[in-house]
Amino acid sequence: MAEQKGRTEIAELGEFGLIDELTKNFKSACKSTIVGIGDDAAVIEASKDTAIVLSSDTMLEGIDFDLTYFPPKHLGYKAVTKGISDIAAMNAKAEQITLSLGISSKISVEVLRDFYAGVEFACREAEVDLVGGDTTASMTGFVINITAVGRAKKDRIVRRSGAKPNDLICLTGNLGAAFMGLRLLEREKRVLAGTDQQPRFEGYEYLLERYLKPRARYDIVESLGEEKLVPTSMIDLTDGLASDVLQICKASHCGARIYLERIPFAKQTSALAEEMHIDPVVAALNGGEDYELLFTVPLAERERIVNIGCIDIIGHITAENTGAYLVTPDGGEIRLKAQGFKESEER
Amino acid sequence: MAEQKGRTEIAELGEFGLIDELTKNFKSACKSTIVGIGDDAAVIEASKDTAIVLSSDTMLEGIDFDLTYFPPKHLGYKAVTKGISDIAAMNAKAEQITLSLGISSKISVEVLRDFYAGVEFACREAEVDLVGGDTTASMTGFVINITAVGRAKKDRIVRRSGAKPNDLICLTGNLGAAFMGLRLLEREKRVLAGTDQQPRFEGYEYLLERYLKPRARYDIVESLGEEKLVPTSMIDLTDGLASDVLQICKASHCGARIYLERIPFAKQTSALAEEMHIDPVVAALNGGEDYELLFTVPLAERERIVNIGCIDIIGHITAENTGAYLVTPDGGEIRLKAQGFKESEER
Repeated sequence: MAEQKGRTEIAELGEFGLIDELTKNFKSACKSTIVGIGDDAAVIEASKDTAIVLSSDTMLEGIDFDLTYFPPKHLGYKAVTKGISDIAAMNAKAEQITLSLGISSKISVEVLRDFYAGVEFACREAEVDLVGGDTTASMTGFVINITAVGRAKKDRIVRRSGAKPNDLICLTGNLGAAFMGLRLLEREKRVLAGTDQQPRFEGYEYLLERYLKPRARYDIVESLGEEKLVPTSMIDLTDGLASDVLQICKASHCGARIYLERIPFAKQTSALAEEMHIDPVVAALNGGEDYELLFTVPLAERERIVNIGCIDIIGHITAENTGAYLVTPDGGEIRLKAQGFKESEER
Repeated sequence: MAEQKGRTEIAELGEFGLIDELTKNFKSACKSTIVGIGDDAAVIEASKDTAIVLSSDTMLEGIDFDLTYFPPKHLGYKAVTKGISDIAAMNAKAEQITLSLGISSKISVEVLRDFYAGVEFACREAEVDLVGGDTTASMTGFVINITAVGRAKKDRIVRRSGAKPNDLICLTGNLGAAFMGLRLLEREKRVLAGTDQQPRFEGYEYLLERYLKPRARYDIVESLGEEKLVPTSMIDLTDGLASDVLQICKASHCGARIYLERIPFAKQTSALAEEMHIDPVVAALNGGEDYELLFTVPLAERERIVNIGCIDIIGHITAENTGAYLVTPDGGEIRLKAQGFKESEER
């Protein structure tokens, strides 16, 4: 009964063009809306000087996780991370989450109990309250939606759009570990299919943890607060360094130079990449799911960034017309291209 | 690799026991959390005298909607209704929504464009802003998550828990129409399967509209505001009158008497019910998806309720130990039982 006129495949519009196209007619009607579509989270007026930050994400079985190797407790933890990482990317503190689940018949109460134990652990760790949601039967796979709400002084909220030429590009932690963890899990699943052997993960536990139980970097939001430092722009690394740097460039109307030799890798990431004949730089650029923070600060703030520690300066912002490039040690430049981990986009 | 120890089926815990069981260990850590799990929406501190109200719902293809007869534009409209109805049920005005979609490969750009046109129409009508969300590929069906954010003065927020004995039970609109609309759509789908005949809907357009394009009753929130009337408890009718009255009774520790002859039906509801040999009372009690508001007010407010118009007083609250019953015209009493439209629960 629903007609099918012309048919355009989603892929034809391109991954990041789709939402722009679909929401171009939407107008804002509420003066309480401070930031709408197009950042890690929306910003809503709370009081004269504070704002509420709001983010919503969906995780689907078969796309975002594989229950054959994803322990339910870790999945619950990771769902919370996904939500509060978006809030951290706005330089805000997450305070509440809601969880809406679609539960298929293959999910038992025991699996759900483990899932909620992971949610509870992550909530306690991040001092976040689970305040609602709903539960529906699912005909298909396990469906998880996490909505996170945070709060910050308005003058501390950081968007993707404030980067300026010469700003330093800063990065927390290291990259590519989650991607290599996923590759390892997929390899062991493939190799062991139909056998009763146990998978071999020795020496790569850190990679599994980074994929299965990543921690959102709200500690960095606290450190920035203590240093009284407000980044000019920020994003959380979910789609790979290339895609996420390009998001900053697009929102801030600027270019960027990232220095290849400054991209930080964990030892296990490099070791497994070598074993699996993968370039760790590719894992960092396109891998995604790192849940680290990428942000920019004015050049003059270099010392305070060094003071915080555990932050690498991996490049700098340039004028928009210079484009966004990865600079190799020999001075070569490789254009950054958005290439998501999977067909997923944030808006 | 994920172990399966004992296995309890979800159904064994009962529809409404599940969330209680899974969230019993959660403790609140944030003083900004005013109301957590267990109402139509969560309530979060905004400023000294205002609060933010937050609700999240998931709609799954095959469970909540059937794309063979659900026009995408109506589906977009209904998703918004689902979100803002929860906000209205707290006596608050919805201001923002986020939309997270899981899109399967059978969904074309044209279908998505129609879906967003419905979202945009509903947003414009309700003066709500779409402020974010995300889009993911889905391996299975179309997945919709809608999160709605509203705002109200703290002293106007209404929970499920404030009903007192002798309070009047008030209902907006009429019941059972959405359920009959769904039955009609299912009948025509069944009858016409494999033929190229057109479905027959003449005379029942209102029922289709109530199922496919229900409108949230935020007009009632405005009317209550104009009358300076604050209900003692409120809920939106999504799971059927029986289930939703019981939610009020459970949260308010009270009983209820609903008078069968006072349950309002539209003419088309009664007509199709007769044609299909369905008792319209059963459609009202168990049907759900009416998106009307059920609320209680002190007996002394009867006149102001009558002033608002389009509200029926269908019963009254009693002491907890008297239970919750439907009273038939001959004085008989039938115990109200929760029996959802589908396996879905709000918390």
